[in-house]
Amino acid sequence: MSVRILGIDPGTAIVGWAIIDDYGGGRVKHVAHGCIETESTKSDADRLGEIARDFEQIVATYAPAEMGIEQLFYFKNQKTIITVAQARGVLLLCAERAHLAIGEYTPLQVKQAVAGNGRAEKAQVQAMVKTIFHLDAVPRPDDAADALAVAFCHSASRVMHRVA
Amino acid sequence: MSVRILGIDPGTAIVGWAIIDDYGGGRVKHVAHGCIETESTKSDADRLGEIARDFEQIVATYAPAEMGIEQLFYFKNQKTIITVAQARGVLLLCAERAHLAIGEYTPLQVKQAVAGNGRAEKAQVQAMVKTIFHLDAVPRPDDAADALAVAFCHSASRVMHRVA
Repeated sequence: MSVRILGIDPGTAIVGWAIIDDYGGGRVKHVAHGCIETESTKSDADRLGEIARDFEQIVATYAPAEMGIEQLFYFKNQKTIITVAQARGVLLLCAERAHLAIGEYTPLQVKQAVAGNGRAEKAQVQAMVKTIFHLDAVPRPDDAADALAVAFCHSASRVMHRVA
Repeated sequence: MSVRILGIDPGTAIVGWAIIDDYGGGRVKHVAHGCIETESTKSDADRLGEIARDFEQIVATYAPAEMGIEQLFYFKNQKTIITVAQARGVLLLCAERAHLAIGEYTPLQVKQAVAGNGRAEKAQVQAMVKTIFHLDAVPRPDDAADALAVAFCHSASRVMHRVA
């Protein structure tokens, strides 16, 4: 028995996504990863529509049961925070409509889960993602690697909740 | 011939909405107004789901062809900007899926259109909304009055585009 988890790293022009299978006890398997890109020349509404359609396609293809997604903080990337938050709202709505169980995690929680250190450097987190999922290389773009990290954080959080 | 316009004032716990008919040449008629409220005890995803369902209900009931919505700025209400932007993303997505033509307006543009002065006080804008739409009183809550102001701004913008 495994639980399929979708990891999401919401961004401005790129939304990273990853699919993993969680077999419990820290055993996870990489299934797929990628990113949703939208054109900056399009309107906000058109870009949000594309993000929703691509998200629904991923859910239809891989049928995840749960989703891990990064939380946003207003003091981070102030100039793009509105665009990122609008995209995150759409992703949360689509997840709710797909009946996914949703876990939200701070960047600190993600780094802690993946690298054992909430203040780990980005490169260190990405190297751990490569190791954890037995990948030949760090996934590119960064957004996809970050999505794998969030998916792993969600699986680790599931273990903790089960133990507690 | 008239064009039915939906005005939206996106907020944290409350989304103001208004429906007006635009007969051209500055002639407008109030049809309905109200607000979408969500419970702060619920998760982000559940609240966004409620906003989407209520928005779809309004569109199904009144069948607007166009939508005017306020733009957000990151220097305004920093602590709630993420929640408001997430809701705004959902509203834009639902408008796109309902094939509404969308106009986005700054608070300055809305005040200019309604009160003839981009720096008008809130009370002044609300009094003008009451006058423009021949209402017995200023609509409550404020969010609904603001939504009527945005709807009127969109109708005024349509006139300008036609003349230009």
